[in-house]
Amino acid sequence: MNYSLFFDYDNKKLEQKAYDNILKEFENRETGYYRLPETSKKFLNINFGAEYNEVVVIGIGGSSLGAKAIYSIFKDKLKKMIFLENPDPVDIEDKIKEIKKPLFFVISKSGKTIETISIFKETIKKFDLGKNAKNLKIITDENSPLDKFAKKWNLETFHIPHNVGGRFSVLSAVGTVPLKAAGLNVKNLLEGAKEFREKFFQKKEWHLNKKAAFYAQNYQKYPINVMFAYSNMLSSFKDWFVQLFGESLGKDGKEIMPVGHIGSIDQHSFLQLLMEGMGKKTLTFVKIENFQSKLTIPDINLPYLEATDFVNAHTFNELINKECDSTLEALLSKNYPIDLITISQINEKNTGNLIMYYEILTSAIGSLLGINTYNQPGVELGKQILRNKF
Amino acid sequence: MNYSLFFDYDNKKLEQKAYDNILKEFENRETGYYRLPETSKKFLNINFGAEYNEVVVIGIGGSSLGAKAIYSIFKDKLKKMIFLENPDPVDIEDKIKEIKKPLFFVISKSGKTIETISIFKETIKKFDLGKNAKNLKIITDENSPLDKFAKKWNLETFHIPHNVGGRFSVLSAVGTVPLKAAGLNVKNLLEGAKEFREKFFQKKEWHLNKKAAFYAQNYQKYPINVMFAYSNMLSSFKDWFVQLFGESLGKDGKEIMPVGHIGSIDQHSFLQLLMEGMGKKTLTFVKIENFQSKLTIPDINLPYLEATDFVNAHTFNELINKECDSTLEALLSKNYPIDLITISQINEKNTGNLIMYYEILTSAIGSLLGINTYNQPGVELGKQILRNKF
Repeated sequence: MNYSLFFDYDNKKLEQKAYDNILKEFENRETGYYRLPETSKKFLNINFGAEYNEVVVIGIGGSSLGAKAIYSIFKDKLKKMIFLENPDPVDIEDKIKEIKKPLFFVISKSGKTIETISIFKETIKKFDLGKNAKNLKIITDENSPLDKFAKKWNLETFHIPHNVGGRFSVLSAVGTVPLKAAGLNVKNLLEGAKEFREKFFQKKEWHLNKKAAFYAQNYQKYPINVMFAYSNMLSSFKDWFVQLFGESLGKDGKEIMPVGHIGSIDQHSFLQLLMEGMGKKTLTFVKIENFQSKLTIPDINLPYLEATDFVNAHTFNELINKECDSTLEALLSKNYPIDLITISQINEKNTGNLIMYYEILTSAIGSLLGINTYNQPGVELGKQILRNKF
Repeated sequence: MNYSLFFDYDNKKLEQKAYDNILKEFENRETGYYRLPETSKKFLNINFGAEYNEVVVIGIGGSSLGAKAIYSIFKDKLKKMIFLENPDPVDIEDKIKEIKKPLFFVISKSGKTIETISIFKETIKKFDLGKNAKNLKIITDENSPLDKFAKKWNLETFHIPHNVGGRFSVLSAVGTVPLKAAGLNVKNLLEGAKEFREKFFQKKEWHLNKKAAFYAQNYQKYPINVMFAYSNMLSSFKDWFVQLFGESLGKDGKEIMPVGHIGSIDQHSFLQLLMEGMGKKTLTFVKIENFQSKLTIPDINLPYLEATDFVNAHTFNELINKECDSTLEALLSKNYPIDLITISQINEKNTGNLIMYYEILTSAIGSLLGINTYNQPGVELGKQILRNKF
């Protein structure tokens, strides 16, 4: 993993404050996600047998985005995962049709998420689930309504630590248990996260404090952070990032609005606006240095298309990464504050590293903005209104 | 289709100017997309036989987003479509594995898009494509390099009118021909688009001029437009919208930045920031009044989960739409300028209507901003830099 900043910034005091704030959060134990690499080790030995072909996650938001992000990176080597998230009837019916031999995980931190419990009821009906069901697992906070229900039905249950919020929960049971069931090497995922955290506290990842200080100090000048991730594998990772930043850093009249894009695809949709629009954004590029595939652009010369031959016999790996570099360079000429995250190769360890990086970054920015990074009071009003509509 | 504005605005002069600008564009024929409902009729009778199981689109940006948006709405009743867009080697290999009996469309307006031609070369190699190939069709501008190549190889070719830009091309051959091949009722799609255009010119869709005038006049106060589309079917439609707005309306130091979200999923990721962040955004909600599925939330009472029973025996259709209404109401209380697009039901006609609405809206805003809605000069620098890296 390599984290590079392409902007000049030097505010040692604020950078130190970012570091100190995180150290304090880590030490006072009020925020639980920092220690998930240790506390989630207990899930490494779980084994659900082989009596299932699909891992079905019933959950939404923080209860699905993390596992989905990691699944989209590793799907080629995992059991199929199906995510029942949205109460969209067509989507639910389509996905239920794909389910043949499922292992279900019903995931809700609060234990009463209306979308999740409603879809759960449909799966109870469709798959004849009931008390003692062996292929039905529950992931929730201890003593939540869903937890009490699970006891009553005698269902195997995994708890989320109370001090781990939904959008910071991917390394808790929420992400690790379904991903383990799908065959992921969760051990390496946790080790990668731990590695980043330890290096951070050893002051070997100072770039994070610099970036956090810059973002927090300039949130009015740059209220938007655009991620350009150069691989389809990262399409759900960008969604996870959007929730992490959006819910954490949008409050008290402040915000750093996350926007996620996939390169090179979205160069063809969003680059124009970045090059010639109003600016006021920070940009983060993410690229994979070494893809697992070395697929090469065939050295074929097609009549009249000779202008495209300059990439012939190069790998697609090289093409997509040089597109990333070229776009970054073009945007640097417009004076955007840019940073680049280079994933040396796709593996669980690097993924864990990247997750912990983003979580600590979010905490650091939030702490410098002086907001509560971990709550989301703004979502309650809509829920109240909904209840009154029935 | 119903288009409702939830904000007060009255600037008859600017609204009239929006209307007049569009009428002028329509009449002077410099911009071609307005007449695609007529000019694309020639594709209604094409028939590629039945010798294929997958429609494979090789294209990126404006050459794929439109067909993809419509495919994601109608995929349950169409032949499988596969989109080879990104030069991501893992994605290309994964998708090529799915291809068994393909009909290929290579689509590039300029006829020299580097990603598209590179992936095309890989498919030539993999599927042994060559001169006179019956399952290989080309869609491009007349006399482009790709067009000349197609002549040389004796390939069936469909032309994009010169005066139709990539992101406005979904109703040209770019979208209609592959979608026809997949089995879509393109006739109704075109009729729906025509219907909206005609009603617009009959001044029966004045809301569009109002919205365009408001957006253009207030682009500095509200430089962001967030779409919340309540159905997974619209997940690619929002991406099409992002390109349409982004490339058209981000230039000359001005912008209206599009952001696309899916409800209710993204209520769990983006609503907090909207409720308590910095504001400065317009919001557009899109909902489907009548889903094709009447799937009902089973009337099951689960112990300890009684608080979720208030939706029992209601349809998911009702739940997702009441979530839309509730979120809209909650955000109205924060004084956002909001509008709501209600699709009475999913069909080709309504989809055509919605596409033409968005295209004319984009043109109207662009014309009032005094920018060239149809070019994208900002994307050239990155392409130059890329060439120099090989």
